[in-house]
Amino acid sequence: MVKEPAVVLTNGWLDNIHAKAAHGLLRGSDRFEILALIDPVHAGKDAGEVMDGKPNHIPIFPTITESIHHLSIKPVYCLVGVTAQGGKLPDSLRTAIVESIRQGLSVVSGMHTYLTDDPEFKDLASKNNVQLIDIRKSRPIKEMRFWSGEIFSIKIPRIAVLGMDCAIGKRTTAKLLMEMCRKNGIDTQLIYTGQTGWLQGLKHGFILDAVINDFIGGEIERVIVECARESSPELMFVEGQSSLRNPSGPCGSELLLSGNIKGVILQHAPGRKLFEGLEKHGCRIPSLEEEIQLIRIFGAKTLAVTLNEEGMHHQDMMKYQKRMEAELKIPVVRPLKESPQKVLPVIREFMENNGE
Amino acid sequence: MVKEPAVVLTNGWLDNIHAKAAHGLLRGSDRFEILALIDPVHAGKDAGEVMDGKPNHIPIFPTITESIHHLSIKPVYCLVGVTAQGGKLPDSLRTAIVESIRQGLSVVSGMHTYLTDDPEFKDLASKNNVQLIDIRKSRPIKEMRFWSGEIFSIKIPRIAVLGMDCAIGKRTTAKLLMEMCRKNGIDTQLIYTGQTGWLQGLKHGFILDAVINDFIGGEIERVIVECARESSPELMFVEGQSSLRNPSGPCGSELLLSGNIKGVILQHAPGRKLFEGLEKHGCRIPSLEEEIQLIRIFGAKTLAVTLNEEGMHHQDMMKYQKRMEAELKIPVVRPLKESPQKVLPVIREFMENNGE
Repeated sequence: MVKEPAVVLTNGWLDNIHAKAAHGLLRGSDRFEILALIDPVHAGKDAGEVMDGKPNHIPIFPTITESIHHLSIKPVYCLVGVTAQGGKLPDSLRTAIVESIRQGLSVVSGMHTYLTDDPEFKDLASKNNVQLIDIRKSRPIKEMRFWSGEIFSIKIPRIAVLGMDCAIGKRTTAKLLMEMCRKNGIDTQLIYTGQTGWLQGLKHGFILDAVINDFIGGEIERVIVECARESSPELMFVEGQSSLRNPSGPCGSELLLSGNIKGVILQHAPGRKLFEGLEKHGCRIPSLEEEIQLIRIFGAKTLAVTLNEEGMHHQDMMKYQKRMEAELKIPVVRPLKESPQKVLPVIREFMENNGE
Repeated sequence: MVKEPAVVLTNGWLDNIHAKAAHGLLRGSDRFEILALIDPVHAGKDAGEVMDGKPNHIPIFPTITESIHHLSIKPVYCLVGVTAQGGKLPDSLRTAIVESIRQGLSVVSGMHTYLTDDPEFKDLASKNNVQLIDIRKSRPIKEMRFWSGEIFSIKIPRIAVLGMDCAIGKRTTAKLLMEMCRKNGIDTQLIYTGQTGWLQGLKHGFILDAVINDFIGGEIERVIVECARESSPELMFVEGQSSLRNPSGPCGSELLLSGNIKGVILQHAPGRKLFEGLEKHGCRIPSLEEEIQLIRIFGAKTLAVTLNEEGMHHQDMMKYQKRMEAELKIPVVRPLKESPQKVLPVIREFMENNGE
């Protein structure tokens, strides 16, 4: 895949949980070469430094115009790297998008307020001869298919990377696990189910949020079947969305059931007590033990737990990790702090059991 | 609500599981007055007789034209009463729809192949000055809302009527329970989640299948909040869809979680061993006991089990009912064979506990 030069727009929210798409892009994309970040609040700093304290030499500019003025390569795309609550377009982003179009950049958005439904954007884009790409727009119904049971013919082992909450690091962990498996000689594919996976240039997947409910099962089956046919890997990871019991919109059982997935790696943030965004309602994240039981009722086995460091000190994390490993009797790893290599034996065992 | 005169089109499938919408309409609608059924295979018989052995004096004609020739009132609507696998329009229905339009009838369809997307239908409808109504078409995204947590302010007790499989009688049971509660002086509303509920003229609800996944939680919350504001009943039933573990597309956890529903009445067909439509894959329906455990993990209590008689002899049903009642220690009733009155005490108790 030849990478397209792009800038990422975060509109002041780079250090916010709603900039998940931007964070994913900064962690690496096969589809886009990220030249710079546009964020008036963090302008002048290093993007990696702001994101997780590790410089990545991607500069931050206050505006698109400023970035074009300073960059040696002209970006072709402006990638909207934030999602407002649920995906509606905040007014404050409008100015930046208009500026991008005026500067001749095509705009890619994963938000639910479609750029292509906006008369001002459409008109401007046509005048400036640039594209507006709404990656969250559902495919036409005619192209959709219903679940057929074809999934039962796919024997390649698959593992869903689920989480105890949304915005907890499922995709990042899934990517690290894929890289670890590949490094160890296992031909592995990661199936994305969110917009960031598409932005990162993953080969197989779909944007689950954007699908009409009746076709969810069929789409899950389709991407797994296509991945098997086109890439025939030895192992598939499937990115989870939300969590099995998130009241704002649970997700996960359809992946396990319609995708006939028998293995789970479960991402958990022991320092987070309440569901993200639902703190004012006091919605508690359920216990890890009960979640593993729930996954078992859905016919899958939790192979390992991966930890998000949020809100926990190193010492407490180490104690927690040790205790949970003893209690659950499965590997418990901290993928951003240590090699996820410890998960390899259980993955190999799962593969030897033909993904069961 | 003034009822509109209508005929129901089942196209030879009246005695088939895919004629669920027709069956619901024959069981009663506040929106439409059903004058006749159009079904070439069953023409000349009584519609109720074919459906469940109980005559209801609704005649069956082989064609629309024939029905208009014999009926004393001219129908205004032709209601498509069948859904093909997942909702695609079968070619054999096309001729009958064209005939309806030519005869001046507006056509209502709940299928995923939209009438309004079909150039032939559109052209004909405009020439004949009739309407094409696709009830399964999603509302525009601009009208959708995300889940906000407002649900926690709604204190009216609500019970979800879930099932162990699709096409197992959830809506019929829910309707009987609503009627029973009303007869016993409880001001009750039934919230529909499928097309048949709309056809039957229920006041509150939405068509879950047709909603873009990201908005499911928000839509569930919206209809419950609207029902509380506009009708302020003492009790709400919420119609379930599919089942919690149907591999073709599970459903139910979003109702319980996003709707903050704490009570469940669970519809079960002990004579059905494999999921409907998935027999060739050997997909077994899980055990009732484990389903009740699963519902508990989702934070709700199963108040009663209701039985579908399918494939079981009367004697065996009686034995099964007795045994399950002893094992589960909750009422187990056969709503089509006996009064659902036995469920009333547990419903009253649930209401006294403020729906918890």
